[in-house]
Amino acid sequence: MEKIGLIAGEALPGLPWQPRTKGHKDVVWRYSGNPVIGRNPIKNVSRIFNSSVLPFEGGYIGVFRGEQRDGIPHIYLGRSKDGIGWDFEPERIRLADTVGCEVYPKYSYDPRLVKIDGTYYFMWCTDYHGATIGLARTTDFKRFESLENPFLPFNRNAVLFPRKINGNYMMLSRPSDSGHTPFGDVFLSESPDLVYWGRHKHVLAPTGNWWESVKVGGGAVPIETSAGWLLFYHGVTGTCNGFVYSIGCAILDTDRPWIVRHRCKNFLLTPEMDYEERGFVPNVCFPCAALVDAQTGHIAIYYGAADSCVALAFACLDELIAYIKDNDIAAGAGSAK
Amino acid sequence: MEKIGLIAGEALPGLPWQPRTKGHKDVVWRYSGNPVIGRNPIKNVSRIFNSSVLPFEGGYIGVFRGEQRDGIPHIYLGRSKDGIGWDFEPERIRLADTVGCEVYPKYSYDPRLVKIDGTYYFMWCTDYHGATIGLARTTDFKRFESLENPFLPFNRNAVLFPRKINGNYMMLSRPSDSGHTPFGDVFLSESPDLVYWGRHKHVLAPTGNWWESVKVGGGAVPIETSAGWLLFYHGVTGTCNGFVYSIGCAILDTDRPWIVRHRCKNFLLTPEMDYEERGFVPNVCFPCAALVDAQTGHIAIYYGAADSCVALAFACLDELIAYIKDNDIAAGAGSAK
Repeated sequence: MEKIGLIAGEALPGLPWQPRTKGHKDVVWRYSGNPVIGRNPIKNVSRIFNSSVLPFEGGYIGVFRGEQRDGIPHIYLGRSKDGIGWDFEPERIRLADTVGCEVYPKYSYDPRLVKIDGTYYFMWCTDYHGATIGLARTTDFKRFESLENPFLPFNRNAVLFPRKINGNYMMLSRPSDSGHTPFGDVFLSESPDLVYWGRHKHVLAPTGNWWESVKVGGGAVPIETSAGWLLFYHGVTGTCNGFVYSIGCAILDTDRPWIVRHRCKNFLLTPEMDYEERGFVPNVCFPCAALVDAQTGHIAIYYGAADSCVALAFACLDELIAYIKDNDIAAGAGSAK
Repeated sequence: MEKIGLIAGEALPGLPWQPRTKGHKDVVWRYSGNPVIGRNPIKNVSRIFNSSVLPFEGGYIGVFRGEQRDGIPHIYLGRSKDGIGWDFEPERIRLADTVGCEVYPKYSYDPRLVKIDGTYYFMWCTDYHGATIGLARTTDFKRFESLENPFLPFNRNAVLFPRKINGNYMMLSRPSDSGHTPFGDVFLSESPDLVYWGRHKHVLAPTGNWWESVKVGGGAVPIETSAGWLLFYHGVTGTCNGFVYSIGCAILDTDRPWIVRHRCKNFLLTPEMDYEERGFVPNVCFPCAALVDAQTGHIAIYYGAADSCVALAFACLDELIAYIKDNDIAAGAGSAK
């Protein structure tokens, strides 16, 4: 098996990890203690799911979609020593704009967290006369500065790359409609300054493989490897009783990340477990973060399950890349470029 | 009646014009020779409509939505001495990108033409994995340079302002869905360079007035007056047999054009005539250009009728602004800012 190098990855000796049990054959496997965040984790928050975490000060920190008892999602801060047990702040994150005025999104959901040049950024689905992308930054997780919305409505599932490429910030997103959107492709947009965005390029379309035939959306912040940017994403199929969300994976070109170098024809994980198949939205595995230990190549994938809880899955970098290449639907095949 | 000044407007002594007939009471009235462009105006083009014109070299020039006999719309160039009789080039406009490679949009419709600092720009609805905004420029109407698409899909009805404001280009647009879009608000976006766009702001929403209760979209390039930017737009209502498009008008703040200073509660023109009520899409009056003679304040409005032809209507600047103010739904009332 080819040895895949991590680019700029850091050693994370404390990364959540559990070896594949004997006889298990899949390239991605679940944590036996799932879900790691169950129901009613905070007073007046009934469910946490579709959330994103990063290493921080020797432990972990995360931005979490907290579905409040009024039914409205907002973003809550959580801290963890081991990435498995989480302590949450009792109140949602408060945002201020660049001149210090408080900002009150009507709702905030599906955040992704990324560190770029020492600053932490998170993007989420916010409302501005329709669902679109919110963007904020912090250096200390105490003050959170809300930046300009990168895009017009309607948009969801934004994922910022962890470094500039060719001098520009790069963000994946999935243009939507005003409802539950029975379509969806992933695009990439560039920005010199995180204020103005352009040079939009198409990246991923749904494919003829049924598990991702309806829509696809960016998931975890991409991991830079010697093979390219490893992107966990969600692929959606339709049934007579609604959508089913699975986890897929693609490898994007390092310097031109709108080019799909490899794309796995099979899902890596699909709803099978009780906590994935039943809940507020049954049949959802929705990846929002993937951490990797540069020393071992161990990957921990955080995914929302059934819009009700957070679960963990694991993979090994070399094995995963080899699996994607072995099951490659050919470079760019999923995209009608 | 308050005398309204035109800012940076030029004298257009040859502007199409026909005085209001005696007894006619409306603030906008139709040209008696309508439609000015009828069916089958070019070989293999069955209909021209939703098109935009400007003064050019002592006459007029325009970019026209030509619905070809294969059913696909593309943009055709037309020239006119008097703004009423038009000669069209037999082939559609050919675009090349910034490095000279030919660009072939799958379709191109509803263009708007604007002159900024001596260069002519036009925007249209193009396809990039979904309907979005195309942008091109020319100085001579012989070579046309295609620029980056300003926005992600799905978007339509882009209108660029005729000058920079606060150092930035300003573009109105109407985010859409992937179909016939049963909703639609007008937003404004800014760009320092016509490549990267941001600082998106909401401008106009549909109102409780039934003629514009479903969606609204930018129409003609705004006219700068001492009262603010005069914007002709389309407002849409829904019936059991489809949409009805009328012409509305608003006045936007000069320096902060996302602020609606005045908005007329009544339509200015709604389908009534044979050429507006019947055609490929019945019941459409769709404004895409408005020219004004700085000397007289005469306004000529070019609008697409029933997706089948181009028609002309007239107004006087002072009268029109007074009418809008008299029938104002109060500043910002249409927008849920």
